[in-house]
Amino acid sequence: MNIEDTLIMIPGPVPVVPRILRAMAQPVINHRGEEFAELFNECRELFSDLFQTKNEILLLSGSGTSGMEAAVRNTISPDDRIVTVVNGKFGERFRDIGRLCGNTIAIESEWGYPIDLDAVAAALEDGADAVAMVHNETSVGMLNSAAEVGKLARKHDALFIMDGITSIGGTEVFVDKWGVDIAILGSQKCIGAPPGFAAVSVSERAFEKMEAVQNPPYYLDLKAHKKSADKGQTPYTPSIPLFYAVQEALRIAHEEGLVTRMKRHATGAAAVRAAADAMGLEMFPQLNENSRYSDTVTAMKVPSGIAFDQLKKEMLGCGILIAGGQAHLKGNIFRIGSMGNFRAKDILITIQMLESILHRNGVVSDFGAGIEAATSVLM
Amino acid sequence: MNIEDTLIMIPGPVPVVPRILRAMAQPVINHRGEEFAELFNECRELFSDLFQTKNEILLLSGSGTSGMEAAVRNTISPDDRIVTVVNGKFGERFRDIGRLCGNTIAIESEWGYPIDLDAVAAALEDGADAVAMVHNETSVGMLNSAAEVGKLARKHDALFIMDGITSIGGTEVFVDKWGVDIAILGSQKCIGAPPGFAAVSVSERAFEKMEAVQNPPYYLDLKAHKKSADKGQTPYTPSIPLFYAVQEALRIAHEEGLVTRMKRHATGAAAVRAAADAMGLEMFPQLNENSRYSDTVTAMKVPSGIAFDQLKKEMLGCGILIAGGQAHLKGNIFRIGSMGNFRAKDILITIQMLESILHRNGVVSDFGAGIEAATSVLM
Repeated sequence: MNIEDTLIMIPGPVPVVPRILRAMAQPVINHRGEEFAELFNECRELFSDLFQTKNEILLLSGSGTSGMEAAVRNTISPDDRIVTVVNGKFGERFRDIGRLCGNTIAIESEWGYPIDLDAVAAALEDGADAVAMVHNETSVGMLNSAAEVGKLARKHDALFIMDGITSIGGTEVFVDKWGVDIAILGSQKCIGAPPGFAAVSVSERAFEKMEAVQNPPYYLDLKAHKKSADKGQTPYTPSIPLFYAVQEALRIAHEEGLVTRMKRHATGAAAVRAAADAMGLEMFPQLNENSRYSDTVTAMKVPSGIAFDQLKKEMLGCGILIAGGQAHLKGNIFRIGSMGNFRAKDILITIQMLESILHRNGVVSDFGAGIEAATSVLM
Repeated sequence: MNIEDTLIMIPGPVPVVPRILRAMAQPVINHRGEEFAELFNECRELFSDLFQTKNEILLLSGSGTSGMEAAVRNTISPDDRIVTVVNGKFGERFRDIGRLCGNTIAIESEWGYPIDLDAVAAALEDGADAVAMVHNETSVGMLNSAAEVGKLARKHDALFIMDGITSIGGTEVFVDKWGVDIAILGSQKCIGAPPGFAAVSVSERAFEKMEAVQNPPYYLDLKAHKKSADKGQTPYTPSIPLFYAVQEALRIAHEEGLVTRMKRHATGAAAVRAAADAMGLEMFPQLNENSRYSDTVTAMKVPSGIAFDQLKKEMLGCGILIAGGQAHLKGNIFRIGSMGNFRAKDILITIQMLESILHRNGVVSDFGAGIEAATSVLM
């Protein structure tokens, strides 16, 4: 029975609130007309706030991955060297894209372990042209230190590409202060719009690097996007419904206020962690002084006494979707997203159901500690 | 005043009917779940009918141009030669994408003139690896002979890439019969969905060519798309609302019946041409035995006595948007789209307003001939 009311608590795509769904269903307009230019320019302005940047904001009709590829393929030529920082699935994606465009120097940590800043520094010292990293690594529930990597990139005059797909709009990001040359956001994450849209901020330095790139893309050509953006347009037909949805999502974020929004995200994830701790669940990420738990997704080890598939099935039976681990973490971890326009009640009912299921499966002995811990953080 | 009821009579994006807008506004679902797989597989099946093919159908979250780039970049290596057939703006797009990926042999006719089949044959004779053409060249309102080019490609064992973005779903296309290795459709054209989605059909021969390609794309990697499609998924997060919209659009096309739908498109364009003729307007395309007027867009020369900008402004004042010429044709031609889920009344009111405006500007002396001609074709 599909009655479309499953509560989606995965790290994106997140539930889309009715106001955004309604905005998306507006009639299609002429994408070369003034009305589209207004829509386009409002989105760019509101994104500047979210990214904390004066850099150019470009809007792509494609998912977050299209933004990652745009960042690398527009700037990296076959002879260039790009450092890719890997401690999860999305870091590997940068590594793989880097290999297609130039030479990748992958600095790999075990998934869920902190990134190796010394190795990044050494590779940049050695003259690498760019460094690409994932800020919020959702596959392992970890926030990597973008500020530190930004400092290293600036010191060695390398381009800094940051995947902020699941952080921007939910976690503090300072594109200009951190010296991020290209930052990427995905629509279906912290801003709470549907998937299929990416926003990227691009510095002057990045545009300069693009002038000499040897194998540029076509659909994802950021120079062409900039040229059209100056006229309030995109070079190829934009996904008009997603622009409408993103506009409404950005207005909602603006109405809430960015500081309040970041705090709501931090509190949401803190509540999940507090509940997990009270229920005796173990966090998956191994932190050091340069890494933090994610503010938008919590990754926990699957406790002994229940298999992930069973847990997922029972949660879904209660109308709540949670996420498992990806690749080799399948079955070992589970993840609860707290991202976008979620509210305290969404977290609390998720924790309540989780605790009930763990209790009836004999994993948790004292029922109520998890709910109490989450409540005390949230309310 | 924007009351969202402008009648859009351009060659796409086309107006989206309420049924499709409502379908698009459904809640977001888990893109890795069974519900998405059902949605995904239904779209692929219905597309097979539209394309008239048994080839693999892959679905991209990107505009039609992303499909054109996917076709070329997955199959053409730096040393390969691709023949690109050019007689308008979108043919030039294939030429430009071809240049980024390999060596383009551009067979250029003047915009609006027939493609040069002899030159295509000679280039293939000379050992070119592939040929790419635009079936329905909307920039000039002309339908190019895909069947003939397909025959040449098969004879010389070259890959045949066909942009069917504005033909498939509105004009007869036989992907398998014509031997099209990669055919491309855009969502915002004949199927009447919003923009931001492309469907491509891919032959076994094309997949074989991909095995050896030297600079493959990432986001548009068709091999990765095939691998995921086998599981009812896409490799990167799909634009779920557009999948919903496309599903509903395909159901509507199916309910109408493909033969009826093609006939409606052919009749719509024939009505515009008959009206133009009756009003003394001249068609822009110069036909030969291998080319036809487009069934989905009619391109006419701007008559003396009125400037295009004035005509467009007065039409818009009546609530109807028409299209001008692109690039060097700006100001010289104007275009009326009759594409997607339009109905006879849309054509008739467009012609009536056009005739009124031309009459009051002194371009047409006897008011009524255009309306009568269009009516007699349509009713």
